[in-house]
Amino acid sequence: MADILHRVGIKDSNPRAVYDALTTVDGLAAWWTRETTGSGETGRMLQFRFPPVGGFDMEVLRTLPGEQVTWKVVDGPDEWIGTTIDWKLRQDGDYTIVLFEHQGWKEPVEFMNHCSTKWAAYLLSLKSLVETGKGAPAPDDVQISDWH
Amino acid sequence: MADILHRVGIKDSNPRAVYDALTTVDGLAAWWTRETTGSGETGRMLQFRFPPVGGFDMEVLRTLPGEQVTWKVVDGPDEWIGTTIDWKLRQDGDYTIVLFEHQGWKEPVEFMNHCSTKWAAYLLSLKSLVETGKGAPAPDDVQISDWH
Repeated sequence: MADILHRVGIKDSNPRAVYDALTTVDGLAAWWTRETTGSGETGRMLQFRFPPVGGFDMEVLRTLPGEQVTWKVVDGPDEWIGTTIDWKLRQDGDYTIVLFEHQGWKEPVEFMNHCSTKWAAYLLSLKSLVETGKGAPAPDDVQISDWH
Repeated sequence: MADILHRVGIKDSNPRAVYDALTTVDGLAAWWTRETTGSGETGRMLQFRFPPVGGFDMEVLRTLPGEQVTWKVVDGPDEWIGTTIDWKLRQDGDYTIVLFEHQGWKEPVEFMNHCSTKWAAYLLSLKSLVETGKGAPAPDDVQISDWH
């Protein structure tokens, strides 16, 4: 098993604001992909689409307001199915710290390298959204390679 | 053991140009940190400094022109000492693909999350340097959190 880990700090914010960006369709659509549907509440499903290449269906496993959000991937690329995506939030001085883990990759395939870098770009989009009101969700996301 | 993985694609480039940015002091200083000294040749040492917080000393373990570069960390933060940093390069159509691995972390501590995101930002700096001639090395690097 292998995990993707990231950490960003969002300045002059608070965990509740970041939590809202992770649990509402409007929030998610403003930093990850405009084509977000479903519900971010515990036990519900979220659908993220990245035309024309596909997307992910997530079951929301856990939502602790201002503290933690956990999703399980139930549909998408084979390498993603069954993995979990976990967000932990806390306040450290002026910063809301976001600890991100995409856990349970069966093997460290090249696609995992790609997804790791791409997650970093999306986390910076989340940071920008909360700090400035403007994120960079797909299809206006940062292109990192031939795999987008 | 845990690894940090990343992948970027550098457009309209070639592996030799990226290799130069990984094996010359001028190249490294233009995307990672301006305070780079030493030599990027096999068997030599590279010193990377990030004032005021410290830095890393690397032994260059392997340099295969246009294909691969491997460093071993011999001094720096405790968590980094003994880890290896490996770069693999190849051409895929219009893109030079960079496969990056920072291997051998003893434990997935929070500092590893930070370094993973920070490596992604520096890889995008490397991509920008080779594509446009302008990177974002420290101290003008992208600030991702309270840990910089």
